[in-house]
Amino acid sequence: MTDLRHTPASSQPSPIQDDDWSMDGDTLHEECGVFGIHNAPDASALTALGLHALQHRGQEAAGIATYDGDQFHLERKFGLVGDNFSDTQTMERLKGTAAIGHARYSTAGGAALRNVQPLFAELDGGGIAVAHNGQFTNAMTLRRSLIKRGAIFQSTSDSEVVLQLIAKSRESNIVDRFIDAIRQMEGGYALVALTRKKLIGARDPLGIRPLVLGDLNGSPVLASETCALDMIGAEFIREIENGEVVVCTEEGVKSYRPFPKQPARLDIFEYIYFSRPDSFIAGRSVYNVRKAMGHELAKELPIDADVIVPIPDSGVPAALGYAQGTNIPFELGIIRNHYVGRTFIEPTQQIRALGVRLKHSANRAVVEGKRIVLVDDSLVRGTTSSKIVAMMRDAGATEVHLLLASPPITYSDYYGIDTPEREKLLAAQYDLEGMRKYIGADSLGFISIDGIYRACGYEGRNNDAPQFTDHCFTGDYPTALVDVDAAENHRSKALLVETD
Amino acid sequence: MTDLRHTPASSQPSPIQDDDWSMDGDTLHEECGVFGIHNAPDASALTALGLHALQHRGQEAAGIATYDGDQFHLERKFGLVGDNFSDTQTMERLKGTAAIGHARYSTAGGAALRNVQPLFAELDGGGIAVAHNGQFTNAMTLRRSLIKRGAIFQSTSDSEVVLQLIAKSRESNIVDRFIDAIRQMEGGYALVALTRKKLIGARDPLGIRPLVLGDLNGSPVLASETCALDMIGAEFIREIENGEVVVCTEEGVKSYRPFPKQPARLDIFEYIYFSRPDSFIAGRSVYNVRKAMGHELAKELPIDADVIVPIPDSGVPAALGYAQGTNIPFELGIIRNHYVGRTFIEPTQQIRALGVRLKHSANRAVVEGKRIVLVDDSLVRGTTSSKIVAMMRDAGATEVHLLLASPPITYSDYYGIDTPEREKLLAAQYDLEGMRKYIGADSLGFISIDGIYRACGYEGRNNDAPQFTDHCFTGDYPTALVDVDAAENHRSKALLVETD
Amino acid sequence: MTDLRHTPASSQPSPIQDDDWSMDGDTLHEECGVFGIHNAPDASALTALGLHALQHRGQEAAGIATYDGDQFHLERKFGLVGDNFSDTQTMERLKGTAAIGHARYSTAGGAALRNVQPLFAELDGGGIAVAHNGQFTNAMTLRRSLIKRGAIFQSTSDSEVVLQLIAKSRESNIVDRFIDAIRQMEGGYALVALTRKKLIGARDPLGIRPLVLGDLNGSPVLASETCALDMIGAEFIREIENGEVVVCTEEGVKSYRPFPKQPARLDIFEYIYFSRPDSFIAGRSVYNVRKAMGHELAKELPIDADVIVPIPDSGVPAALGYAQGTNIPFELGIIRNHYVGRTFIEPTQQIRALGVRLKHSANRAVVEGKRIVLVDDSLVRGTTSSKIVAMMRDAGATEVHLLLASPPITYSDYYGIDTPEREKLLAAQYDLEGMRKYIGADSLGFISIDGIYRACGYEGRNNDAPQFTDHCFTGDYPTALVDVDAAENHRSKALLVETD
Amino acid sequence: MTDLRHTPASSQPSPIQDDDWSMDGDTLHEECGVFGIHNAPDASALTALGLHALQHRGQEAAGIATYDGDQFHLERKFGLVGDNFSDTQTMERLKGTAAIGHARYSTAGGAALRNVQPLFAELDGGGIAVAHNGQFTNAMTLRRSLIKRGAIFQSTSDSEVVLQLIAKSRESNIVDRFIDAIRQMEGGYALVALTRKKLIGARDPLGIRPLVLGDLNGSPVLASETCALDMIGAEFIREIENGEVVVCTEEGVKSYRPFPKQPARLDIFEYIYFSRPDSFIAGRSVYNVRKAMGHELAKELPIDADVIVPIPDSGVPAALGYAQGTNIPFELGIIRNHYVGRTFIEPTQQIRALGVRLKHSANRAVVEGKRIVLVDDSLVRGTTSSKIVAMMRDAGATEVHLLLASPPITYSDYYGIDTPEREKLLAAQYDLEGMRKYIGADSLGFISIDGIYRACGYEGRNNDAPQFTDHCFTGDYPTALVDVDAAENHRSKALLVETD
Repeated sequence: MTDLRHTPASSQPSPIQDDDWSMDGDTLHEECGVFGIHNAPDASALTALGLHALQHRGQEAAGIATYDGDQFHLERKFGLVGDNFSDTQTMERLKGTAAIGHARYSTAGGAALRNVQPLFAELDGGGIAVAHNGQFTNAMTLRRSLIKRGAIFQSTSDSEVVLQLIAKSRESNIVDRFIDAIRQMEGGYALVALTRKKLIGARDPLGIRPLVLGDLNGSPVLASETCALDMIGAEFIREIENGEVVVCTEEGVKSYRPFPKQPARLDIFEYIYFSRPDSFIAGRSVYNVRKAMGHELAKELPIDADVIVPIPDSGVPAALGYAQGTNIPFELGIIRNHYVGRTFIEPTQQIRALGVRLKHSANRAVVEGKRIVLVDDSLVRGTTSSKIVAMMRDAGATEVHLLLASPPITYSDYYGIDTPEREKLLAAQYDLEGMRKYIGADSLGFISIDGIYRACGYEGRNNDAPQFTDHCFTGDYPTALVDVDAAENHRSKALLVETD
Repeated sequence: MTDLRHTPASSQPSPIQDDDWSMDGDTLHEECGVFGIHNAPDASALTALGLHALQHRGQEAAGIATYDGDQFHLERKFGLVGDNFSDTQTMERLKGTAAIGHARYSTAGGAALRNVQPLFAELDGGGIAVAHNGQFTNAMTLRRSLIKRGAIFQSTSDSEVVLQLIAKSRESNIVDRFIDAIRQMEGGYALVALTRKKLIGARDPLGIRPLVLGDLNGSPVLASETCALDMIGAEFIREIENGEVVVCTEEGVKSYRPFPKQPARLDIFEYIYFSRPDSFIAGRSVYNVRKAMGHELAKELPIDADVIVPIPDSGVPAALGYAQGTNIPFELGIIRNHYVGRTFIEPTQQIRALGVRLKHSANRAVVEGKRIVLVDDSLVRGTTSSKIVAMMRDAGATEVHLLLASPPITYSDYYGIDTPEREKLLAAQYDLEGMRKYIGADSLGFISIDGIYRACGYEGRNNDAPQFTDHCFTGDYPTALVDVDAAENHRSKALLVETD
Repeated sequence: MTDLRHTPASSQPSPIQDDDWSMDGDTLHEECGVFGIHNAPDASALTALGLHALQHRGQEAAGIATYDGDQFHLERKFGLVGDNFSDTQTMERLKGTAAIGHARYSTAGGAALRNVQPLFAELDGGGIAVAHNGQFTNAMTLRRSLIKRGAIFQSTSDSEVVLQLIAKSRESNIVDRFIDAIRQMEGGYALVALTRKKLIGARDPLGIRPLVLGDLNGSPVLASETCALDMIGAEFIREIENGEVVVCTEEGVKSYRPFPKQPARLDIFEYIYFSRPDSFIAGRSVYNVRKAMGHELAKELPIDADVIVPIPDSGVPAALGYAQGTNIPFELGIIRNHYVGRTFIEPTQQIRALGVRLKHSANRAVVEGKRIVLVDDSLVRGTTSSKIVAMMRDAGATEVHLLLASPPITYSDYYGIDTPEREKLLAAQYDLEGMRKYIGADSLGFISIDGIYRACGYEGRNNDAPQFTDHCFTGDYPTALVDVDAAENHRSKALLVETD
Repeated sequence: MTDLRHTPASSQPSPIQDDDWSMDGDTLHEECGVFGIHNAPDASALTALGLHALQHRGQEAAGIATYDGDQFHLERKFGLVGDNFSDTQTMERLKGTAAIGHARYSTAGGAALRNVQPLFAELDGGGIAVAHNGQFTNAMTLRRSLIKRGAIFQSTSDSEVVLQLIAKSRESNIVDRFIDAIRQMEGGYALVALTRKKLIGARDPLGIRPLVLGDLNGSPVLASETCALDMIGAEFIREIENGEVVVCTEEGVKSYRPFPKQPARLDIFEYIYFSRPDSFIAGRSVYNVRKAMGHELAKELPIDADVIVPIPDSGVPAALGYAQGTNIPFELGIIRNHYVGRTFIEPTQQIRALGVRLKHSANRAVVEGKRIVLVDDSLVRGTTSSKIVAMMRDAGATEVHLLLASPPITYSDYYGIDTPEREKLLAAQYDLEGMRKYIGADSLGFISIDGIYRACGYEGRNNDAPQFTDHCFTGDYPTALVDVDAAENHRSKALLVETD
């Protein structure tokens, strides 16, 4: 147990000044979930169900593209899948036995329907629809070069860069054009594409973003997570490997290897936070890994307390693991209100002041007069955590300790996770004691880097060849960051602001 | 442990034939939560927050009425409080320092904005807005009599009967008219009313439905549950007593006792299911009572199993109690998808078939190869439970036992709980073994009636003077059921179908 | 040609200061058109068509009520009939072979769906829907008295007073109750009502507002104007007489005479402005009467000019008559833009400044270098007219004369016409020369009172027993103005402001 | 008077079988109006006003693009300009002192917001927005070639072809790129474009579609018609000449001549039908030309009748001219209902049967017992005309003659007018007598080709070098019809059907 990761109280918490009432800036957001199915009746309904299972990966908007043997159909909407892709009119418009779909989390600003995926283009040899999860680290650079050559972009979505590269490729068949395009892209991504005869899936060379292959009565299925296969009753076949392209046709599934072979480096945050607990990644249950993180925490940072309280919902499995590891009772000391909807989008001053209580409330019967250990998955800006700690004290807790099932986040992500700018990350601003003061906890502790690798079944991090990418904790970015290095990146992103 | 409440497997589960794909018919719904505040700046914003905390009691629609010293303002909307009562335009229209609000669950059919509460009427002496939680057992009978005397009803809401009785009262002041009105009503209810100078609260003679009094910096607050007081940072003062009317004015809170004194009989379902776990009723923590039910179950029905799995979210506290009582690990074997929204309102056939998975999915890592005990709060029609049991078996559970933290529901409710007709209640159709077969579990068990009373801190049910009303389990209805006895009840309910 | 009605230019026009950019304050608005049909297939579709033909009488909202032999159905919407009562879903909900409908013009403020007619009430003996055109001059007084007796009003519509009086009537059958109710009402109105077995029509004792009876293949039809009969291909049978109540059942049409017989006094504005030119009232073609007004104007106020220009659309028939009477060419010197919709509801400053041009533009080819005579139906506040005169001068007219086919409006209406307060009527503020200056015309002239009576086929106004009511010109109100005399009229109108 | 253009009755009218109840197929529709303004405060509000004045050229959708010195802003909406471009939020988003706008008529099928103009593209050297009125006769051919070269199209609008050609041009500055693009386009068009520093206007080499230049306090204005200049109070400067490109910058207006000089050939339909009567084209008042057509008709086809009745609104000026020429009274024998909105979009059977009366009704007082001459601007499919003739007979007309102020339409248009397929044009199906029978008139007559040229001030058509393009009457198409000659034209148009 190093000082860096755990420190006892030594002073009073600093006052909190922020107006991030909504708490939305204090969690991580992945941008997307993808799904595809080929050669199946009810392709669009199955895609809607698959996206519903992936809704935790993005709630802002969703889209489905289908091909009916003659025409492509595309529907894109803001809001939840269940609200938008359930009525008969919409679903009847999405004719066909092949479909891809996409659920996305909003990136700040310029949200427009134009940017909602899948995107579609009519190519020389027929149409193609594309959707992706993740981020291309050289997208802006490629975009500028394409514009110089006369390309017209209608969205600000990275997916359109892929489309334009496909459209401009000199290769003759669509698979070669697709491979030609992704060879020019850098970054972490899972891509699905639909052409008149093919469903294509691809995973970046390091396998940073996940993608699995399933089978539903002989129809191939692609999805970001196994929980989407479970949703539609499909069988899990295997993961798409890092750097692999799979092409599903009526003849079956064919695999391509357009990139040099190298070890995979999944983003470890898929285990920590993004994936649904009932999903399996690389053969490991996400739920079990999270519980194991709690067990590791129990070994690394045992605390003498009366009750273990998860910060719901993300902290529950690790809290259960910690409670089992320490033999301290696990109790629901915080109640989460799930009826938030678009809640209080333009809050009055009154509501703003009450902040955190919209989503979380103290269960006084559990915490009053108790020494409690709060367990959460990760600490981003610390604004929510500090309010929850204060709420626990208000409810009568005599001691409040906060443990995190991931190490301090000190670097931004560039592979599809919407992290705040580095200067807003709490761990980039303060040392451990500074963070503790900010949070106002009696003690604050983080699992060690090796601890999370152990929870994943390794002896620790292999620093020579890390088994995952863990750049948010270590700054060890696994690819070049082309756009970040290019200066004007930001300005060119928002040349056209359209509200439809 | 009687046979009636627990039976081991003796045969194969019967096939399930139902098209209740949405599962909505398989839970209980209370119709409403109420809130009121007097003499407070930002009265409407505080009311919106209070209703947000009570949203679990009704998600279909909500309304707020305010009085600004000169005019009444009324806004009623379908949908969540957070979606509808947060924008500045709406909230600025709701001027004033006194407000009442209402969140309601939809009763089937003829949903119209006209029926959303609060309702308002201009009386001779000034306006009055009224909202209630619960049900009047003689509302239809009174309605018919009022129509005979020339009253015009604009809604089919029971609250309007109260309004009409107030309007027709010969008493001279508004409090006497209000009391005159409720004296004519039978049933279980919590009422809030707003006049130009008064906030009025009332609880039925037996206190079937809950209502509490709080204080926010000197402003009186009324709410269905204490969690709404916590939400706005108000202090809990006391419960409104059964049969009590409280009148809040600028001079303070005055209490009236218009009914003969009798012992209270709260609906025990408030502990079992309706109230939020962090609320306190009659001094008892709802969370602790639910956990105690789990402990009672552990005593009454200990099962040799590998893991305790709650049916989320309602079964979680009882499952925790059961796990602590039996020392079997508590694990999240079922993952709940909260992104349902209005989900799949017009489902395709495909979606219909996948039914239960929209809300619940199996966490295979927890249940595969295990003997599991599912714990839920209650069993209504059994359709969801049977699908969850099947889902557990699909995920590899070797044994699936189902325990309920309430006795078999064999009677309908007439005090504001939307129970199915009696013939659709599983426990009214089958004996215990029949239910088990229908559910398909290896064993099925219910807590005893005395068990739930013990969980509430009593030695058991006092059959001479029951401490609660538990009519759904016992058929012991605490009041006359005037309308039920009258024959044409049903027909007259739907004389006008209007969609606005 | 008297000085009072026509004056040559003697000075420069005064500058206009008003911000009534929209011009809406400068026309008269009648509040409603009504329609009813009994015992006819497609009753709701025919009613929609009838209301479409009456749309000129009110564009803000419309409603239709039907009875299908078992239930009443009611649909009310803001907007045009053609936009709201054409889709199959709406029309299929409006089942039944009997229907009444209503198109209304908005009265300022508190517009709410609750106020859109028809209104419905469930009475002791069955339901009744009611809609009316016109105004009850003692509605507020009756309303207050009803509230005193315990009635609850859900709208601020006068129609609800009728409903409440019907509901409270001690008479035993519905026709007697209806007659009992209207006997208590004062004013000018045409009423239609629908019960389970009857379609009822009624016209006020003086026949101030119009109502006709038609026949469509044996089904009786009631409508505000004959153009609605033409629309659906129904035959005109006769006018409902002043003070007559007709009751249509399966047995036929029965007439009642609940009021003492007296001579009719139709509102002469029906000829001047409100009715559609292709309608016939009291046997006279509205178009022909308007043209005759132009001919009378030509006799009374001949002007030496080059071209006659109607102010479209209302001034066209009178202008044609004037052109024929003077033998000066009739030309479209003003082009009307009909694509206004809800046009420019929140205008920018720029748009506000351009005011009148949104609806009218000068046809320079017609007016440049010409002495023109503008002809319009009436002059209300004068704001539009003054801008049109200026527009004509800008387009090069050398002289601009303005003639009105009605006398100066010096009194407000209280029978359903939405006139500005008296002090805003131009003719109540200025003498003729003052008006001319305000308008900025070279001369300004009005037809004489006797002139409009001559255009209607009389030798002149019979001052002992006027053939029409012409109170806006003469102040000779044909009924008591109960509410106007009561002081607090205005305040009580807006006790509840609800926006649904 | 030749037989071809006029024939007396010789037989009974044939029965009409069509289900074109809405009549919409029986008028011509131009697709668009365009507007632009540079270097003016309130550019977007002025553009909204200009588009409002051009609303008769297209009511389905409208869009405005602005540049604020830093960013482009784009708003596109379905519906009327006045409904969509008047609220402060929308207008405040459209910042800047330069703007272009577009109002469009819907072409059948695949209507999507993507297709609403202006369209925008980010080019290498900065953004450009483009909108056009008219049609490119080689757009599909160019589109296919561009797709082959890797272009991605996001709309099916012809304007996007222009954008893509500009984007791909090798020229270095934006004006040269624009000229490079339009040199590749064939057809009839008026184009406006907005770049960061320039407002560009262009008219096709023959000047088929109109475009004028105005001046508002020093700010240059471009508009399809002069009535849009009048609307905003701008001064008319001159017409953009055929084949001219004008470029407005802060330095002033510069003219380019990228095409070989040739005589202009305006589409004569601008005089006959499309332009607003108060507009001037090529120095001639549209209203006066239309009246002159009536005068020509009076000379060519004098009929002995009692009354001249225009088919409103398009037939009014010609009818006035005909009445003046024949000295027969002009009367409003048909009343037009302007409250149609989206009227009766899904009509019930009943409404469908009543067809034509939704828009037109007979004014019996004018036509009963009379021999009437109906005058309209043109005859397309004849379905409406035949119903109006029947309606006149129903209203008691003893003779009904129909005269058209344009020759028989026997050819489709390919320059932006939405004509039915040739086989549905009445004049392409029948000879004059056949048409008369179809229409059911006592006689039917058309103005001669030379007659319309005379109405425009010429001695007749110069067949060697026609002063206008009149291809719909003569089949003399003034440009190559590249796409029409290419076979698969139609299929490729609708590869993607998206509803947003």
